[in-house]
Amino acid sequence: MIPDREFIKTPEVPGPTKEEVRCIVMCKSKILKGDVVADIGCGTGGITVEFARKAKEVYSIDRNPDALEVTEKNLKKHGLLIKANLLEGDALEVMDEIPDLNVLMVGGSNGELSSIIKKGYKKLKDGGRIIVTSILLETRAEAVKTLQSLDMIPDVVEVSISKGKITKRGTMMIANNPITIISATKV
Amino acid sequence: MIPDREFIKTPEVPGPTKEEVRCIVMCKSKILKGDVVADIGCGTGGITVEFARKAKEVYSIDRNPDALEVTEKNLKKHGLLIKANLLEGDALEVMDEIPDLNVLMVGGSNGELSSIIKKGYKKLKDGGRIIVTSILLETRAEAVKTLQSLDMIPDVVEVSISKGKITKRGTMMIANNPITIISATKV
Amino acid sequence: MIPDREFIKTPEVPGPTKEEVRCIVMCKSKILKGDVVADIGCGTGGITVEFARKAKEVYSIDRNPDALEVTEKNLKKHGLLIKANLLEGDALEVMDEIPDLNVLMVGGSNGELSSIIKKGYKKLKDGGRIIVTSILLETRAEAVKTLQSLDMIPDVVEVSISKGKITKRGTMMIANNPITIISATKV
Amino acid sequence: MIPDREFIKTPEVPGPTKEEVRCIVMCKSKILKGDVVADIGCGTGGITVEFARKAKEVYSIDRNPDALEVTEKNLKKHGLLIKANLLEGDALEVMDEIPDLNVLMVGGSNGELSSIIKKGYKKLKDGGRIIVTSILLETRAEAVKTLQSLDMIPDVVEVSISKGKITKRGTMMIANNPITIISATKV
Repeated sequence: MIPDREFIKTPEVPGPTKEEVRCIVMCKSKILKGDVVADIGCGTGGITVEFARKAKEVYSIDRNPDALEVTEKNLKKHGLLIKANLLEGDALEVMDEIPDLNVLMVGGSNGELSSIIKKGYKKLKDGGRIIVTSILLETRAEAVKTLQSLDMIPDVVEVSISKGKITKRGTMMIANNPITIISATKV
Repeated sequence: MIPDREFIKTPEVPGPTKEEVRCIVMCKSKILKGDVVADIGCGTGGITVEFARKAKEVYSIDRNPDALEVTEKNLKKHGLLIKANLLEGDALEVMDEIPDLNVLMVGGSNGELSSIIKKGYKKLKDGGRIIVTSILLETRAEAVKTLQSLDMIPDVVEVSISKGKITKRGTMMIANNPITIISATKV
Repeated sequence: MIPDREFIKTPEVPGPTKEEVRCIVMCKSKILKGDVVADIGCGTGGITVEFARKAKEVYSIDRNPDALEVTEKNLKKHGLLIKANLLEGDALEVMDEIPDLNVLMVGGSNGELSSIIKKGYKKLKDGGRIIVTSILLETRAEAVKTLQSLDMIPDVVEVSISKGKITKRGTMMIANNPITIISATKV
Repeated sequence: MIPDREFIKTPEVPGPTKEEVRCIVMCKSKILKGDVVADIGCGTGGITVEFARKAKEVYSIDRNPDALEVTEKNLKKHGLLIKANLLEGDALEVMDEIPDLNVLMVGGSNGELSSIIKKGYKKLKDGGRIIVTSILLETRAEAVKTLQSLDMIPDVVEVSISKGKITKRGTMMIANNPITIISATKV
């Protein structure tokens, strides 16, 4: 994974998703070289860049133009702009314009998580994966419920990471906020 | 417990120990009304104030004068100054001046954790308790080893707390840094 | 707190709530000597026993007769049976029979969390507290939403505790399952 | 990653390392196709199998013959036996027989962590990685200290994972034991 410090950041745009969380997201995505990915709520672009390294094509969607701008900068920095398509707007509308998907990644959903999952499911090829990262108590339960309503079997992983900060007095453990990764496969 | 926001804070002085951690520390201390407590490395005074509410007398020790000043302010704010004795200086020296203890609490040890525990053990009455809170990888292991060298049986609890921040979009979970609470009883 | 091993256990009845969690629950309850408490879904009785030690009277409700039987045994073991009233049945029905409350504790709700909170709220005296412990992703969000619908401000704490098991090779950290404690005060 | 259930298990042999932890270990290893890896204390072989999928060659060392037997079965099951060399014996002795390494992975050390790291360091090519997974309070601090004594900069990550178990009543969160992953690069 790319270290967190290797991403350009912008105030007001959340992310990048922390290294260890990106790592688990990529594992859960079972991404393959030829895959097409949508990254909904791409924020700083941490996840977009990782998918761009491994997949054929990424559609990065955010309704915040600042997010798309910094995602573009991070793609450029890592020489991956050619792999990505940056789409500004409401996810539910923009998703109409994208091709069928192997992976639907939802990192931000602006209160429309359930509709985004359902719309993405229709675009998903057989064997395709949906992955939701959630930092809100409410969206965790909503993701599980929505995936179940689509007859998918959700894999739910709550991840709490603390990182050691080496100081003169010893290794101080600093917590990252917990994040829940919900994923499922379209059979 | 007193809410975190009810403590006066000062830059550069760590603390107060978070509400839920103070809560577990107090439970582990099995504090009784007539008890005498030493709080080594009292910092902002969060733990000192809680012990002052429940015990007979607290000796709060820190080598940082700013820590003692803010601990004093917090004791005053909660009407408990009369219960506490504020002692500035190196813990190993200052501990010579204090009476026998029911509870030795070590929240900060400036690299002398092992010696502080051993010295405190001598001051500890039968049935007395030692409690160490540790945010460093190294001091956790050191506390366990030192307590074992004194034939005490350490109770080791690693506590990771996340608190919900209510936002318009939902309940965002914010992590506190993990802390390890090591405690033991003198038989 | 009473150590976990000091509770009688029965197969099929969940609990007792772990020592450190009982400790935080008691802190959040701000329990006072004269208080009346209802413990909904009392299970093994761990929380009931702690409230019985500190409050005036506890109403322990469970629809599983085995739960009430083991709760009774644990109350007897700790000499606190006189403080408790054991009520078998569906919480929503049984709650009609109990007096006004200072603390409503919900540890188990059999899919009726929202209704139990709302019914308990009506029984709650001004300044009274509602506390919900949740091990399910879904009930955490439901508790927050229900408390907000009653104009209460939820305090949400997710607690992850690991306990050290002393072995010849060192201190092995063993995780307890995470639990979320949601609490609020009736203004 | 290979799901946990896809590994053959044997009583008394620890592991396999859980999927999400294997995932982070692989990310931290920055493994490349041509790499040579040693897996010290290979246990059930979970980590060995993952390295065998991505690297050129793995040397799996354990002093427990049952561990090597089950590791061999798991390599066979995943068609990777050809990539691995199974070596029974004390790590410090067996390490003399292996070639230079790109990755030293230490999952079990039988009280000799510091010596194993130091010996492995000598075998490590420039740019090579050392990774230690620790479930003991003591070995975490020991790994950091040893890596620092070799002028390496340790990356310390404590990982707490809970997995959702879908039940009729909701998604029950079940904790895995916390594990600390310490890694460093030879400059």
